[in-house]
Amino acid sequence: MTYCVGIQLDDGIIMVADTRTNAGVDNIATFRKLYLFQRPGERVFMISTSGNLATSQRVLSILKERIEIDDEDNLFNVPKMFHAAELIGNTMTDIVARHQAAAKSSRVDFTSHFLLSGQIAGQEPELYHIYGEGNFIQATRDTPFFQIGESKYGKPILDRVIRCETPLNQAMKCALISFDSTMHSNLSVGMPLDLAIYRKDSFEVKLERLEVNDSYFSKLRTAWGGGLLQVFEQLP
Amino acid sequence: MTYCVGIQLDDGIIMVADTRTNAGVDNIATFRKLYLFQRPGERVFMISTSGNLATSQRVLSILKERIEIDDEDNLFNVPKMFHAAELIGNTMTDIVARHQAAAKSSRVDFTSHFLLSGQIAGQEPELYHIYGEGNFIQATRDTPFFQIGESKYGKPILDRVIRCETPLNQAMKCALISFDSTMHSNLSVGMPLDLAIYRKDSFEVKLERLEVNDSYFSKLRTAWGGGLLQVFEQLP
Repeated sequence: MTYCVGIQLDDGIIMVADTRTNAGVDNIATFRKLYLFQRPGERVFMISTSGNLATSQRVLSILKERIEIDDEDNLFNVPKMFHAAELIGNTMTDIVARHQAAAKSSRVDFTSHFLLSGQIAGQEPELYHIYGEGNFIQATRDTPFFQIGESKYGKPILDRVIRCETPLNQAMKCALISFDSTMHSNLSVGMPLDLAIYRKDSFEVKLERLEVNDSYFSKLRTAWGGGLLQVFEQLP
Repeated sequence: MTYCVGIQLDDGIIMVADTRTNAGVDNIATFRKLYLFQRPGERVFMISTSGNLATSQRVLSILKERIEIDDEDNLFNVPKMFHAAELIGNTMTDIVARHQAAAKSSRVDFTSHFLLSGQIAGQEPELYHIYGEGNFIQATRDTPFFQIGESKYGKPILDRVIRCETPLNQAMKCALISFDSTMHSNLSVGMPLDLAIYRKDSFEVKLERLEVNDSYFSKLRTAWGGGLLQVFEQLP
């Protein structure tokens, strides 16, 4: 399983992804699921993935290659964010169609989900959720965050806290708590975590990895767990 | 959808169930999903259900009828709690098999899930989760609660709070918060809520219904939501 969150705020964008993949509980591995494409000062894209790892890695390889060979459709020349979403969706559906044709009777699900966020100079930052069928939706002020993968355990705290006006650092804290709740309840989501923070109009992404024993995250988890129990005990 | 929780504690048992059923979002209704069978001073059973409503209602009707006609297998003469779980499981699989045979090509899922808890005089209180296939598991000191239906949103708080030693009233509060989180995130779980509190060896169940505007529940929700945000704001 996987868990990824993308949040679009007035101040910018937050993306967090775990790094655990599993095919059954006895086949667990660590893979990066948060990718960055940037052309300093001009455009920046953050992409996180869930679902079939072979498909999502292939999509990312193709996206990279298209930039390298300066293909007519590549992330560095699409005029708008939604063209980037379309490019990802189409690249995926091509791959999925090929695998499905090759493995007719197999019941493997070849689809992946993507969160795409970023900004192109002169335009607003945007966040998209690209479905396994290649179609996509865009975050709005009413619904400023998307989740992919194991999303339910971590949704209540996002529902309560996240608004467009939430500052970047508060939103990051909230995303980390959402991951804490998810990892507490589902073994198939695990550390380390990849974090991306993007301040609007900066065209520069701060990318960090929280390792298993990260001292800030440990402090945050303890403070949150303890605080919750305290609130609980003071309830009427 | 549905959400039901059963908790087995040193002091007794808590069961909570919502009352919303839906077949699509435009076909929503209120149905009781928490049932009580008791013979004062001698035995008590609490049963909650999720899944196919036709199946679970039919199971309950048969369980009642078997008591009325004093069938050789009925809830009031089973010697142990696990026989009651077996009775429910077998009753369900009979019904499911009949419907599946009649509707061969249909993809309807006829199965239900049940939580069964209670106590028979001279024995300990017990809690069971009966699966759609009729088999079942029993709660233990390590895993003192079960959920059926839309369980993920409400699981983190139960994971954090519930231990065998938790007092009954604290466990009930925790269950209500778990419902609050679930109803916040999933429209198909809804008020009113049915609550059952059973104190060990009392052979008497306190059954209550929390209506939509219940003042205590509103207070609890507000205090919890406010407290959460406060803890959040004080995080490092």
